[in-house]
Parts: sequence; C-alpha cells; structure tokens
Amino acid sequence: MIALDGVPADDRGLLLGDGLFETLLAVDGVLADLDAHLDRLAAGCVTLGLPPPNRAEAERLMRQALADVATPRVAVRLTLTAGSGGRGLDRPAEPTPRLFATAAASAAPQGPARLALSAVRRNEGSPASRLKTLAYLDNVLARAQARGKGADEAVMLNNRGEVACGAAANIFWVRAGRLFTPALDCGALAGVMRARVIAAASGLGVETAQVAAGPPDLIGAEAVFLTNSLIGVRGVAALDATDFGPNALVERLAKAL
Amino acid sequence: MIALDGVPADDRGLLLGDGLFETLLAVDGVLADLDAHLDRLAAGCVTLGLPPPNRAEAERLMRQALADVATPRVAVRLTLTAGSGGRGLDRPAEPTPRLFATAAASAAPQGPARLALSAVRRNEGSPASRLKTLAYLDNVLARAQARGKGADEAVMLNNRGEVACGAAANIFWVRAGRLFTPALDCGALAGVMRARVIAAASGLGVETAQVAAGPPDLIGAEAVFLTNSLIGVRGVAALDATDFGPNALVERLAKAL
Repeated sequence: MIALDGVPADDRGLLLGDGLFETLLAVDGVLADLDAHLDRLAAGCVTLGLPPPNRAEAERLMRQALADVATPRVAVRLTLTAGSGGRGLDRPAEPTPRLFATAAASAAPQGPARLALSAVRRNEGSPASRLKTLAYLDNVLARAQARGKGADEAVMLNNRGEVACGAAANIFWVRAGRLFTPALDCGALAGVMRARVIAAASGLGVETAQVAAGPPDLIGAEAVFLTNSLIGVRGVAALDATDFGPNALVERLAKAL
Repeated sequence: MIALDGVPADDRGLLLGDGLFETLLAVDGVLADLDAHLDRLAAGCVTLGLPPPNRAEAERLMRQALADVATPRVAVRLTLTAGSGGRGLDRPAEPTPRLFATAAASAAPQGPARLALSAVRRNEGSPASRLKTLAYLDNVLARAQARGKGADEAVMLNNRGEVACGAAANIFWVRAGRLFTPALDCGALAGVMRARVIAAASGLGVETAQVAAGPPDLIGAEAVFLTNSLIGVRGVAALDATDFGPNALVERLAKAL
C-alpha cells in the first residue's frame, strides 16, 4: 500500500483525474462482491487504455487497509491512477499505474434518503460516464448542490435532460408495478449493486426496464430508491417537493440481496 | 511547495478530481499573464465553493518550481486541490485547499498542428467545463484518440454536437474574413490566451464572433488555429482529411500578441 504521504505530485490521477476507483463494503472482514468489483475495474482499464492491476495485489492492498479499521462495517476504496509521467495530457508510451487502498468506518444509512434535482449534468457523451473515474468533480458539485438544499443526495440528468444517476448511487423507480432504471447510455455508472438489484428483481419475477426517462417519470413514480455498494438498496422519502412512501417491492428487493 | 512525494492519499484532488490548475509559460524567468491566471484560478474557486489561494504564496511556489528548470522556456503548473477530508463526495465543513507548483521545460510547438475530431464529448452541462479542473480525464481520452489517428490535438464537440475546444487548447477559425470561436456555454474553457487573442483581434479591427457552430463550419473555414498559454497562437494544417493553408490574419494575430 502507498503510505498516506506517498503519492507523487506528478501522478496523473492527481493532476488530471486519469484513473479509476472502486468502493467495496466489508462487513466483519468480508469484502462484498470482490470479483465483480475487480472485473469492473479491469474493464474500465480497457476503456481507458491502461494495463489492469494484478488482482491478488489489489486484494492484498484492500485487506491491509481493512485491517487498520476496527469497526465491523468498513468502506474500502481501491484507487488506480495512470501513474507518473507523460507530457501534459499525453501519457507515457508505457503507463505504469499506481494502485493503493484506503479504508474507513462506514455507518449504515439512517432511513430513506431525501433527493434534490441538480443543475450539474452528467456527461453521457464520454465513455467515462459509465465508469468510476478519478474525474468525479461533477458529482462532487451535484452532491454539494443537494446538500445546500438540505437533501442527502442529488439526482443528475444528462445533457439531453434524461435521468442518469445519483451523485454516488444508481437510481431505480417503481411505476405501475414495473421497475425502471436509466439505461447505461444515459450516462449511468454500471453499478455492481445496480446489476445485483436487476438480478434480484428478475429472481422475484420482476424485469427491470433500462430506459431514457425524464424527471416527470421519477416524480410520478410510486417509489424511488438508490443503490450502491455501501448502502445496498436505500429507499427515497422525497425528491424536492414530491414525497414517496414505503413500497412493498422495494422492501422485497432490499431483503432479497 | 509540496515535495514530489508529499500529496497524501486522502487528498480530494487525487481521489475525486476536486480542484483546479493553471498552466503558465515562463520565458527567461518571466511568468506570462500571471495576474490573469491568478484571477481565473480565484474565479474558479468561487464556482467550486473553495477558498481562493493566497496570491503571494501562489507566486512564490511557482517561482520556486521555475528556479529548478534550467531551460529558457518553461511550463509552470499551479495545482490547487480541495485538500484532505470529508466523507466520500462530501467536503469537510471548512475545506483547506492544498497548493503546489511544478515546472518542466517547454519546447515551442513545431509547425502547424494536425487535428482529429474526437468521439469524446465535452460536458457543456457542467460549470466545470468552463474551468481548468483536476477532472480532466475526458480531455486525456480525447487527446489519446487524436494521437491514435496520428494527429497532434483533438477537436471536442459538446453533447449538442457543437464545436467546444481542443483537448488542451481553445479553437478559432476564419471564414469570409471574420473570426469565430466557440461561445463559453458550448463547454469551452475561458482561456487566458483566448481572451488575449480576442483583444488582439479587436485591436486589429477584427471582432470575434463567439458562436455555437458544428463541424461543417470548421471544415469549411479558410483557416483554423489553436490557442493556449504555452503555444500562444498555433496554426492548424489539417482537421482529419481537410487541409488548411497559412492565413494572413492568423499570422498578424500571432505577431500582435
């Protein structure tokens, strides 16, 4: 693991957001969905043109970071940067990625989330919008806007005005008993928990429609929920002035995971 | 200055692209357009909700980095991150930005540039698209696409299909004796050299139209050129299969700076 004072100032992740990360939940020392996260990281490396990390080394770094946190529930973050070197935007001919892991106690979310629609758009026209990249500033700004409105999380639209995702979560909704989530080409992250929820719903006989939909579809929904690896399924109490109640399908999904 | 091994792994610039940078040209030890760069950095801090840096400290860091490079022509980069702390996307209540400067020899560009249209779009729907942020991965990917086609620089469109900018430059074109550049709300960086060129053109009696225009406007232009602080004005020899010759107005502008 790179020590906490160990990232050089010429690192391309630091200077340009050139890299990827994964956030995993560990409960009682067990890293959830480890293979799925490492698979996604490797696929992201292909998209970015970087060599993928050694899986055993990645797991070792995460376990080492995890061992430093005493709570039962821990968020473990694995960060891969494009490494040092190159000139300006141009990478060196043979980039040597830098890999490190950090960990912190992670409390379970308290009750349903309040959402606020953000004015910061998701960039559906970049392959990076399907990845967890180190260039996450738009999401930071969207979250800050939501916090400024007293909400817990933002809803980000893409530049076409379609619902894309939360700032740090995928988003689903229930309408007329059917389950919906934004299609990946709307600028949604290919979330590990998103895939698990789609599979769990299918196991309950409910297919998920992956769609391009506007805010009215969310506002008119019977229920809305967020997913990510740390929160699993988290219900939504409100989107701006629209309130949502509990929903039987959402509760069944949360239990089925 | 932060030493080259001194950026902690919990820095928000590193983890999330949460921060800004400026790149200045220094020739024979003189930092060009210093005030304009520090003004833009301070304005960017307002947009991102970060306290602006102390200008004297920023200048001192840049001069210190500059002193380490022996060539007459030096690129000096000032990087401001949102600092350490916070939880996930959420900043701490009182962010403490981290400021550091790096410098490297910078050769003058050799001849006109070859451009290639990139498939990676600029995110016109984010305020970050007008700023030099640490979340520059889309530009890294666009540049890599251009290099893959044997070109020097990419042309990035926004999600509406309008010309926005190069990966690391603003773009101008001449058509029927008039000068054009993308409007900032197309997702163009508010370039220091862009502003200087607009002012220099005005001094020559040529007003610059800041427009929303598609690739056909570029392809049908009499001349195309790039601007940034390191290259000043650099002519364009080709955009994909379209060649451009030298142009008297572009040459007058390059001399007038």
